[in-house]
Amino acid sequence: MTKNRLEAFSDGVFAIAITLLVIEIRPPELHEGERLSHALWEQWPSYVGYLVSFLTIGVIWLNHHRVFEQVVRVDGPLLVLNLNLLLWTGLIPFPTVVVAEHLAGGGEAARTASALYAAVLLLMGISFAGVFAWITHDARLLHRLPPPEVVRATRLRFMAGLVVYGAAVALSWVSAPLSVALCGVMALYYAFDQASVLDEQEPGEQRPTGRPA
Amino acid sequence: MTKNRLEAFSDGVFAIAITLLVIEIRPPELHEGERLSHALWEQWPSYVGYLVSFLTIGVIWLNHHRVFEQVVRVDGPLLVLNLNLLLWTGLIPFPTVVVAEHLAGGGEAARTASALYAAVLLLMGISFAGVFAWITHDARLLHRLPPPEVVRATRLRFMAGLVVYGAAVALSWVSAPLSVALCGVMALYYAFDQASVLDEQEPGEQRPTGRPA
Amino acid sequence: MTKNRLEAFSDGVFAIAITLLVIEIRPPELHEGERLSHALWEQWPSYVGYLVSFLTIGVIWLNHHRVFEQVVRVDGPLLVLNLNLLLWTGLIPFPTVVVAEHLAGGGEAARTASALYAAVLLLMGISFAGVFAWITHDARLLHRLPPPEVVRATRLRFMAGLVVYGAAVALSWVSAPLSVALCGVMALYYAFDQASVLDEQEPGEQRPTGRPA
Amino acid sequence: MTKNRLEAFSDGVFAIAITLLVIEIRPPELHEGERLSHALWEQWPSYVGYLVSFLTIGVIWLNHHRVFEQVVRVDGPLLVLNLNLLLWTGLIPFPTVVVAEHLAGGGEAARTASALYAAVLLLMGISFAGVFAWITHDARLLHRLPPPEVVRATRLRFMAGLVVYGAAVALSWVSAPLSVALCGVMALYYAFDQASVLDEQEPGEQRPTGRPA
Repeated sequence: MTKNRLEAFSDGVFAIAITLLVIEIRPPELHEGERLSHALWEQWPSYVGYLVSFLTIGVIWLNHHRVFEQVVRVDGPLLVLNLNLLLWTGLIPFPTVVVAEHLAGGGEAARTASALYAAVLLLMGISFAGVFAWITHDARLLHRLPPPEVVRATRLRFMAGLVVYGAAVALSWVSAPLSVALCGVMALYYAFDQASVLDEQEPGEQRPTGRPA
Repeated sequence: MTKNRLEAFSDGVFAIAITLLVIEIRPPELHEGERLSHALWEQWPSYVGYLVSFLTIGVIWLNHHRVFEQVVRVDGPLLVLNLNLLLWTGLIPFPTVVVAEHLAGGGEAARTASALYAAVLLLMGISFAGVFAWITHDARLLHRLPPPEVVRATRLRFMAGLVVYGAAVALSWVSAPLSVALCGVMALYYAFDQASVLDEQEPGEQRPTGRPA
Repeated sequence: MTKNRLEAFSDGVFAIAITLLVIEIRPPELHEGERLSHALWEQWPSYVGYLVSFLTIGVIWLNHHRVFEQVVRVDGPLLVLNLNLLLWTGLIPFPTVVVAEHLAGGGEAARTASALYAAVLLLMGISFAGVFAWITHDARLLHRLPPPEVVRATRLRFMAGLVVYGAAVALSWVSAPLSVALCGVMALYYAFDQASVLDEQEPGEQRPTGRPA
Repeated sequence: MTKNRLEAFSDGVFAIAITLLVIEIRPPELHEGERLSHALWEQWPSYVGYLVSFLTIGVIWLNHHRVFEQVVRVDGPLLVLNLNLLLWTGLIPFPTVVVAEHLAGGGEAARTASALYAAVLLLMGISFAGVFAWITHDARLLHRLPPPEVVRATRLRFMAGLVVYGAAVALSWVSAPLSVALCGVMALYYAFDQASVLDEQEPGEQRPTGRPA
């Protein structure tokens, strides 16, 4: 199992999961005398779910590349840990559709739906942290172990993500829409964070053969 | 993040979105005593939606390649702008199924469905124009900045697309089928336009390592 | 647009279409007191449809590679003709599910369903013949034009396919199951035919850089 | 047909099949006064099905790579045998959803569902054994025939898989949940077995150009 194949398979799962999100937005069924524009409007949780989950999976894809960029050897535990990450990422469309159906209704259903959503993201985050921890626990898997302060900073960022997703689970008992919004803010933050890292690299480091120093 | 990976991920999303369109064509449910041939015929908006959306996503794929052919460096904003383009492209199957269900019925529902359809294509077009504007605003991302008149001509073509999609949104209040037809004509025009550009290139320019001069 | 990208995109569409077939096999809904084993058995047209369509798309994939193996230049018309082939191939899951729902019922619905199925395969076959005719009408697109008798033999094989699919459309008025069976026999024949061609090649010709003489 | 393309197409089918599993987990429909948390809990067979099928397809992917790693030539029968393996692997989402709907209900439906599930895995296992038997029956397809004791050991492992899946089919008449659990244990065992094989290899053997001696 070479690294290239692991990445190609993971990218395939990310691309499919992100594109499958759209089939969870069902066309509205019109009640007697209802206007389509009204029915489409009522479905706002579907659009919010699509947006937040799309961003989240997009960020997982970005982050996955950045983490694997420096990997030179794939061992057995890494394979199993990565499959575990794919399992939770591939599951994201399910809580997305549960949120889409129950967020607007309020009450227990909205709370449970948003808690389920944040919990799946939390489990995805724990899986991802496991992948990162395994990769950096031993220099054998890496071309060169990054400086300890870089590893520590990245681990802290992973921890921060887990804390935020955990907070989103708790927040769903206070306000379901706020909980989903927090997950969205998290994805936005990561997207811009990943993008800014890219800008710090020199052009020469981006060539296919180059690796961040 | 190398350019190759950005393109491979985008191509994956385009290929999946274009193939998912078919699952929005549902098999007809027969009413008491209805002939299947009649029920299939009644579903013509599904087939029109499949055709127009297939062409549109096919053209996005073609155009995406042409734009990225000359990119040598991917920076943060380009990553975010490209993810935004994928978000709107991946959404296309949703307005397609709304059009499929409501176009034949006429009235407010048909108008709203076709306006939604054209509006999503308009937002996709704006996203694509944003990607192109970012790429050409700075020579750092390109192997070599194309001649200013080429950049200007391409920007004009993007603007023309936005104007046509905007007109399709407006047209939906006059005639929903005409609005969808206009989106289809637009995709056809782009398809033949892209194809003709290819024919102007010399064979040698098409090799994997070649780039248009 | 290089040949590699055209092939990768086409392969993506084939792989997705072939895998999407399974979601058209719906789990049976049990009537009062019905046994699941009975309900699963009643769904035999779903399994037949999956099998025949899987084989058909698999053969399209094999054949697509064989045809493009010798292509060195992609021009505009080839791009449009290939998109047309993808459009009909991507549509195959739709008539498959119509056959799955109506074949067992007999009568007009079964006849129409099998005629629709064979008609979509016929249109796919015509599209593929168009791709092949364009590629071989001009030596510019090929590394080297195959001997005229090889081109003629392959064109005859394409024509034979069109005749058989046309016969399957007609046969559906006599017997819907026979019409679907004829499409299945066609796919099986092509599969073994493609496989045998491979066996005639020398090992050295199969390396990534080799092309059949 | 080069080996690379066969592998890329197979990987595509595996990645799509594994990601499609999620759309078989439907959001629960709430009965009058039912809590969402209760309804989600009642759906436990959906989650079990997702988990076991995800693991199973993941292991098929791992195993497929390991088997094809040493292949240097693809002949006709291998092509047909591999398509047969893809057909059964691509079918896995169907018995998964049947299990999801009927496992909790018990009785004939649960028994039939779990027998169907194990039977499809058994047929997938037979197809895979056919691929392996063909590859190793003749040195022409391999870079170098592995030592006879390695071939014999791998064949025994394939046989063991068939025996376990056969036992799972029989076990479904005793206890449907136990039968599904046995399939899950099987996938887990294979996952860790594949992972451990990887660990025995030397780092140098994992480079894209290296093959296990």
